[in-house]
Amino acid sequence: MPERDVCIIGGGMSRWGVREASIIDMAQEAAKECFDEVPALKKKDVDGLLFASSYCGRRSFQVNIAPVIAERIGIKPTSMCTRLDTLCAGGSSGIILATGLIKSGMADVVVVAGGEKLYTPQRWETYYSELASIDHDWDGAQGMGLPPPYFSMTAQEHMKRYGTTKEQLGAVSVKNRRNGSTNPKGHFQKAVTMEEVMASRVIVPPLSLFDCCPITDGCAAVLLTYEEKAKELTDRPLVYIRGTAQVSLHSMSMNWPGEHLADWLHLRTAAKRAYEMARVGPDDIDVAMTHDCFTISEIVEMEDLGFCKKGEGGPFVESGQSDFGGKLPVNTDGGLLSCGHPFGATGIRQAREMLHQLQGRAIRQVEGAEIGLTHNLSGLNVEHTILIYGREP
Amino acid sequence: MPERDVCIIGGGMSRWGVREASIIDMAQEAAKECFDEVPALKKKDVDGLLFASSYCGRRSFQVNIAPVIAERIGIKPTSMCTRLDTLCAGGSSGIILATGLIKSGMADVVVVAGGEKLYTPQRWETYYSELASIDHDWDGAQGMGLPPPYFSMTAQEHMKRYGTTKEQLGAVSVKNRRNGSTNPKGHFQKAVTMEEVMASRVIVPPLSLFDCCPITDGCAAVLLTYEEKAKELTDRPLVYIRGTAQVSLHSMSMNWPGEHLADWLHLRTAAKRAYEMARVGPDDIDVAMTHDCFTISEIVEMEDLGFCKKGEGGPFVESGQSDFGGKLPVNTDGGLLSCGHPFGATGIRQAREMLHQLQGRAIRQVEGAEIGLTHNLSGLNVEHTILIYGREP
Repeated sequence: MPERDVCIIGGGMSRWGVREASIIDMAQEAAKECFDEVPALKKKDVDGLLFASSYCGRRSFQVNIAPVIAERIGIKPTSMCTRLDTLCAGGSSGIILATGLIKSGMADVVVVAGGEKLYTPQRWETYYSELASIDHDWDGAQGMGLPPPYFSMTAQEHMKRYGTTKEQLGAVSVKNRRNGSTNPKGHFQKAVTMEEVMASRVIVPPLSLFDCCPITDGCAAVLLTYEEKAKELTDRPLVYIRGTAQVSLHSMSMNWPGEHLADWLHLRTAAKRAYEMARVGPDDIDVAMTHDCFTISEIVEMEDLGFCKKGEGGPFVESGQSDFGGKLPVNTDGGLLSCGHPFGATGIRQAREMLHQLQGRAIRQVEGAEIGLTHNLSGLNVEHTILIYGREP
Repeated sequence: MPERDVCIIGGGMSRWGVREASIIDMAQEAAKECFDEVPALKKKDVDGLLFASSYCGRRSFQVNIAPVIAERIGIKPTSMCTRLDTLCAGGSSGIILATGLIKSGMADVVVVAGGEKLYTPQRWETYYSELASIDHDWDGAQGMGLPPPYFSMTAQEHMKRYGTTKEQLGAVSVKNRRNGSTNPKGHFQKAVTMEEVMASRVIVPPLSLFDCCPITDGCAAVLLTYEEKAKELTDRPLVYIRGTAQVSLHSMSMNWPGEHLADWLHLRTAAKRAYEMARVGPDDIDVAMTHDCFTISEIVEMEDLGFCKKGEGGPFVESGQSDFGGKLPVNTDGGLLSCGHPFGATGIRQAREMLHQLQGRAIRQVEGAEIGLTHNLSGLNVEHTILIYGREP
């Protein structure tokens, strides 16, 4: 049998933020919106579920959560029903793995969902369990713990080498909070000014409060199937998954693969693979969702994804090149900085926004977008995951 | 591009038992043995890692463990690097998902590994965290907790309906402990007599100590690639993955899909799908590894996998039909009852034994075995996962 082309045909999100709802309740909200986007779909035709969550075991005391989610959303998988954990990229892992199952004919219609219940009134629990996501035996033992100190070092390195300014970091936040201000599903719906960003309290210099994504509860879901089935199920333009990569070159910080902390060799490795598989280059990308867990991340990503030259990420953002009307609109739905980051849900939130962009129905639409890229980093920058999507010609 | 055929070409295990070693150490042991089976493989050619573990977050305080394992075993994945949790079937999920990636051309050479560090001197921790694996909001709230009481009800139902005896349960244990007595990697290397089984202390009637698998630490690893690459890498007979299914029809016990607790409709659903995909039937199977977490499980599995008629699982085992020299040798390496059950590792231990059987080099060899089946159930019997393997003709 020849391999099949794989399409994403529906997407949904729960409301994201500080939620008085369980992860299972939020998964149900997201799945409902996703199924509602494809009214022709019969739930009995869904044969797979991949659910990405890193902390459901600890925060919701629910390991093996996939059958619980399947029952709640009313599907009975026969090809696959499992949970994934790639931390911040679990959702993207799910989309890649589902693509493999469908492309090879091993599954027909798969729900890829994900989410976390992260917020707790006891903040120590939030911080403590977050520590489990680093390389515990090495970085943990050496006191390299939570992400903000780590990314502050990246920011310092980038500033020292390339003259990047705190205002350029702030420009990422201003853009993404503005984009997110019209997204009813995100954590925040409030734009911020450069003055507010610069005046916000310091977390770890040079990163201030508005340079960091918040701690957020939420779920998201997308629906994948093969081309012929997609044509049966939807009249909207078909959106194909064209290229995928998930790269892990190291785990311990001391084993960093690049020349310096602002040189993300593993991201370039992932980009090269995904571009080659999709037979496109960075100049072909019309819209991108990248992993802006911190403002500095989006700046380095612009460079190592090939959207601008190395060291020019700061000016690229500051001059509006990653905004609407610029070279390449990035994080059009608000990104992690505005939507928040319930780890397993983020890659799926990105896929949903990409689907809406490439079908011409996003809230903030990039006119004529045909090819899009989504990107996740995981943990203390130990993995990079990329998906490239293309609309039917 | 036409889809590719997928082969399993190497397998390894750490020593299983009560281990003074971390999950990462044990993964390294398993991967070393796996790589040593395929000396022609260069580690740089490995582009994917799927690692199945349900309790690494809680027991080893390591979420997102896949990059940590990748670094320790010396590989740098570019297609996929993630953790999976399907509880008792995580390893089999990994093999299915890796098969999809390779079959579709999205990955070339993938390590599928898995394991748990389950044993703790504080037994309450072992039991407490095990409770997270049930449907917490429903079964948990109603006091339906750990597996032994649940499977004792299944055994009672089977005895009542079909006249199954405690000696027939015991025959499963005697067979599997005998098979495992020559397996140097398993938890136990000691055969037990029917007298010992019958006299062992009661856990939950009718299940006694030797009717239950132990709490075990351990890891296992297998190597998968496409047919052409497999021919380059090994001179041994090629073993193909021919059929796969992972079925979840319910989560809450109260939503049980069968007629009664000893009627496993979800297992029959999985078997039907896997047999159809592999274009074989139960009579074609030469050797099987099934999920003998309790003796009663293996008896029901013989029936609902189609190896004997419904209700005849007890006599099937007691008369030696699932032993060497019988119709179908089952759990030739000792199964869960003898090897133990570090959840994420079990499906991979089964795959490794199946590889050895179909290549004619198992410790207890089924002569001329060409087609084999492995089976996992998960949690309180909420999911069934099946793989069918075939040797090159």
